[in-house]
Amino acid sequence: MKILGIEHIGIAVKDLDTSSPFWSHILNLQHKGKETVQDQGVLTDIYDTTQGKVELLQSLGEDTPIGKFLLKKGPGVHHVCFEVDDINKAIKELKELNIQVLSDTPTVGAEGYKVIFIHPKSSGGVLVELAEKP
Amino acid sequence: MKILGIEHIGIAVKDLDTSSPFWSHILNLQHKGKETVQDQGVLTDIYDTTQGKVELLQSLGEDTPIGKFLLKKGPGVHHVCFEVDDINKAIKELKELNIQVLSDTPTVGAEGYKVIFIHPKSSGGVLVELAEKP
Repeated sequence: MKILGIEHIGIAVKDLDTSSPFWSHILNLQHKGKETVQDQGVLTDIYDTTQGKVELLQSLGEDTPIGKFLLKKGPGVHHVCFEVDDINKAIKELKELNIQVLSDTPTVGAEGYKVIFIHPKSSGGVLVELAEKP
Repeated sequence: MKILGIEHIGIAVKDLDTSSPFWSHILNLQHKGKETVQDQGVLTDIYDTTQGKVELLQSLGEDTPIGKFLLKKGPGVHHVCFEVDDINKAIKELKELNIQVLSDTPTVGAEGYKVIFIHPKSSGGVLVELAEKP
């Protein structure tokens, strides 16, 4: 598979109102927009560095991946996303290499990217997302 | 301050021999090299995506930042590093904004970058490193 770069870092936050000023007003990152991803039970708030984005993630409820993460670990880095040229080719390769992916087919994430997640067991404790640009 | 991009993601690992194959052979990232940073008590193993690097961090002992992190949280993302144009200007700005930085002057990190760290209390639970290219 061909990794094209770090697409974004996903950061779990308790609430966007208190968390976003650090990224917008201290680091002065460019705001790209907010978007609800119902599939993942999350409200995203995206900032661009021009070389990789920061995606703040506020859960839509306790029984969502981000809700559970916050209860267990508190706010912080939730996942790291890499852009790939071909998501279906990547899934096929990962399965052949016995890497545990969390779904057999890509789902649609923020900004319309086709995404899958690799289980942290396969990647040394890091939840890795792979994403193909729409 | 001017952020130029995500420079790298720092990942704490128990040992490089078992952790590096995922990044080198599964994700096929380009290996840049290993380097000991005595100041931080760490052996780094660096991979480049061409848009941001992955820096695997193996501690040189339990009484180091990575050693303590591994004992407390286990392997996973330890910090996120952003490249800045001027590290001294960034430190000055952060202090004026009452952001807690872990040192008053930059230290020299891997690859000769001048670096500082922002306390996770100031950045919503994320250990943020800022780095100026040598």
